[in-house]
Amino acid sequence: MQSVTVWNEFIHEREDEAVAEIYPEGIHTTIADALDERGHETRTATLDEPEHGLTDDVLADTDVLIWWGHAAHQAVDDDVVDAVVERVQAGMGLLVLHSAHACKPFTRLLGTPCDLTWRESDERERLWITDPGHPIVDGLGDSIVIEETETYGEPFGIPEPDRLVFTSWFEGGEVFRSGCCYRRGRGKLFYFRPGHETYPIYHRDDIQTVLDNAVRWAAPSEGADAYGGNRNVEPPESP
Amino acid sequence: MQSVTVWNEFIHEREDEAVAEIYPEGIHTTIADALDERGHETRTATLDEPEHGLTDDVLADTDVLIWWGHAAHQAVDDDVVDAVVERVQAGMGLLVLHSAHACKPFTRLLGTPCDLTWRESDERERLWITDPGHPIVDGLGDSIVIEETETYGEPFGIPEPDRLVFTSWFEGGEVFRSGCCYRRGRGKLFYFRPGHETYPIYHRDDIQTVLDNAVRWAAPSEGADAYGGNRNVEPPESP
Amino acid sequence: MQSVTVWNEFIHEREDEAVAEIYPEGIHTTIADALDERGHETRTATLDEPEHGLTDDVLADTDVLIWWGHAAHQAVDDDVVDAVVERVQAGMGLLVLHSAHACKPFTRLLGTPCDLTWRESDERERLWITDPGHPIVDGLGDSIVIEETETYGEPFGIPEPDRLVFTSWFEGGEVFRSGCCYRRGRGKLFYFRPGHETYPIYHRDDIQTVLDNAVRWAAPSEGADAYGGNRNVEPPESP
Amino acid sequence: MQSVTVWNEFIHEREDEAVAEIYPEGIHTTIADALDERGHETRTATLDEPEHGLTDDVLADTDVLIWWGHAAHQAVDDDVVDAVVERVQAGMGLLVLHSAHACKPFTRLLGTPCDLTWRESDERERLWITDPGHPIVDGLGDSIVIEETETYGEPFGIPEPDRLVFTSWFEGGEVFRSGCCYRRGRGKLFYFRPGHETYPIYHRDDIQTVLDNAVRWAAPSEGADAYGGNRNVEPPESP
Repeated sequence: MQSVTVWNEFIHEREDEAVAEIYPEGIHTTIADALDERGHETRTATLDEPEHGLTDDVLADTDVLIWWGHAAHQAVDDDVVDAVVERVQAGMGLLVLHSAHACKPFTRLLGTPCDLTWRESDERERLWITDPGHPIVDGLGDSIVIEETETYGEPFGIPEPDRLVFTSWFEGGEVFRSGCCYRRGRGKLFYFRPGHETYPIYHRDDIQTVLDNAVRWAAPSEGADAYGGNRNVEPPESP
Repeated sequence: MQSVTVWNEFIHEREDEAVAEIYPEGIHTTIADALDERGHETRTATLDEPEHGLTDDVLADTDVLIWWGHAAHQAVDDDVVDAVVERVQAGMGLLVLHSAHACKPFTRLLGTPCDLTWRESDERERLWITDPGHPIVDGLGDSIVIEETETYGEPFGIPEPDRLVFTSWFEGGEVFRSGCCYRRGRGKLFYFRPGHETYPIYHRDDIQTVLDNAVRWAAPSEGADAYGGNRNVEPPESP
Repeated sequence: MQSVTVWNEFIHEREDEAVAEIYPEGIHTTIADALDERGHETRTATLDEPEHGLTDDVLADTDVLIWWGHAAHQAVDDDVVDAVVERVQAGMGLLVLHSAHACKPFTRLLGTPCDLTWRESDERERLWITDPGHPIVDGLGDSIVIEETETYGEPFGIPEPDRLVFTSWFEGGEVFRSGCCYRRGRGKLFYFRPGHETYPIYHRDDIQTVLDNAVRWAAPSEGADAYGGNRNVEPPESP
Repeated sequence: MQSVTVWNEFIHEREDEAVAEIYPEGIHTTIADALDERGHETRTATLDEPEHGLTDDVLADTDVLIWWGHAAHQAVDDDVVDAVVERVQAGMGLLVLHSAHACKPFTRLLGTPCDLTWRESDERERLWITDPGHPIVDGLGDSIVIEETETYGEPFGIPEPDRLVFTSWFEGGEVFRSGCCYRRGRGKLFYFRPGHETYPIYHRDDIQTVLDNAVRWAAPSEGADAYGGNRNVEPPESP
């Protein structure tokens, strides 16, 4: 069981009726409920809360932070971004979903713009598993098929992933690196593409399985007592 | 200018009329001619020559070895494979083409079976460039389109590439990691998917550009004078 | 709890009295006992047993295989090596200790000779943790100090590790990449340098902690049902 | 021949007599002269110039930017950092020297604090070459010995390097990953540890050789015409 905080900018669900029908209480609530049922301890946080709901206390108590954003990346306060980035360096896991590819914490941690091509034309997507032994795909088959979704295309402006878990095929001719693992400091990061707000993708059992697996994978280990920023030290050996 | 040896098992071109029409003098000759025109010094070698044409003298004079095989991987002598692998460790580049994914030198150097799914159904392939700053794609656009070809699919049984340069989309629903860079010892390896023998793929200018670029990329550097196998040494510092 | 098989060539302990005093029942027994106490289910296997003790049944029941060898790498039967390599591709973890850097399964899986420089001069070693968030160093401090040991030096003829967990400092002037993580197929590999047979290194609590952590890390995940060698497939999408 | 800009905060050389004696015209001038002699076209830029000497025109004309900083990382204007980072994404190489490990462009591009331990105690350093086939070590032996220098120690707070070219041994007991290669976007990055201002390190021929090699390695390739930020696209295939 991990302590998971699901963050959502929570805008489309309140401004667009079609989205509200799919996620009446917000994408964050749907994801949090799914992880709760799978045995995690969950809370949610949204853009309009003070400190976007990501106070030091909340972050300190979060093993894995899930991030969904799209319309308001620039509205996220830089102090909150600093706090999130610092917590990832210290071990907190970070799952970055769909259009959050361009969110501040992810681009800050990767050091690249994470840009891509896109199109909204209800295309079919097949996410092929390119790393079948990875714990993030526990219990899946060879691919996940999403009947209709937004399309993303390469080049995806990211550093080479440590492990590439999913690669998507789209009906209209694109491919995309849809499941990408990284490490920054002690923290693990996983980018997972599915999740456009106008489709009920987070209600799917297979997608929820990936999120559950990814939470378990991204949770911090104890690690070594060996880190403390830039600091002056005495020689450990005396020549 | 690099010294390039193009190796081919040279079987289909002599047994299958349709292939012979496309490559009357063999795939190796077509590739060698193309690289010759682009300024490299080329030779060819085939399975039926003594030592498969890969004598110590030939290997010692080869900067980059190109390998095409399909029907006769097991007929390649293990001593020749040992010599090729050793030369790669010492710095020789190795370009592995299409169905040579399963050849002995490549699987030996990667340490995995490099298996995949496949189908011959004349499908359209689009090779997306997923690493647009890599020297192997110098001069290309955003993708290479091959109108009809054999299909390969994931999971491709390889270690994570150091850099993934091409990812293919296929009409029938597959994706494939079609351009993969590795290093083993001092040698650079590049796997490049296109090249099924029943299509005139190596006659294409864009494919020849990739081969030319890959040869330049895979050529050995001088490196440091720092290597010599397992050996006993005196302490460099005297405590 | 993992099912662990500890393999040892078991030669020095029977031929060298000084080694026998340190490991009267062999290095394998000391390691197996330590892991047993830490909650794993262990068995041992040695070179002189039929199939070196690594029958198909044993391998099929092994989550993580630990390998110690030095004097008799070439005496290990290639069929057994094939079976070990295949099991690693299918998910079995492999921990490679000290002079097993040159053993057949490890060099086969890495695709390089894994050669190095060495010297027996009772030097002090300090293994620095270069990846403090890695689960293999759970519970450690910033380094492990071994008062007297054999020295290894760079260049270590390996592919770039996926993660470099330990880097050693030696009194006589060498450094060495002493803790290296890899993946091959579904299997995880960890090379760990300490363990020269003439010192009681595997009796140390900190070294046993690393082995315990590494066993937990290297144990297979369920993964996806997505793998089956080279095979012909129908198009998943019908264009 | 590359177009190289050598940037230096240029503070210690004007405030500390001992440093001024070693680098009377600044570290940047010493490095620029050395690269000029080795065939590159060089210019310098310093903190106190308008835009720190890194105007859009200068950056647009720079193949490789070299960065030395220590006392004034925070004084570097964020707009200039943005411009440098963007140019690296577009292909400009970046060499980061010694105490510039903590400079804004490097930490921004890596996404980690790049912190470390340190001590000024005139210790001997031996930089072992851990990747002897890399072009950055062309022409060197197995190591570089620096008789007296500042010490850095692990853990170095960086992402796993793409290639680790140098690992340092220090007399007082530390090791350090002293030569680290990365890619961000189309740009190549190389961190190189030597260069404390109180020692005449940049006057050495071997260190200048590394800088020369690194400049050649980090220079941009032409690459593919395949990049353009987040953008909406039409389907390349019509299903």
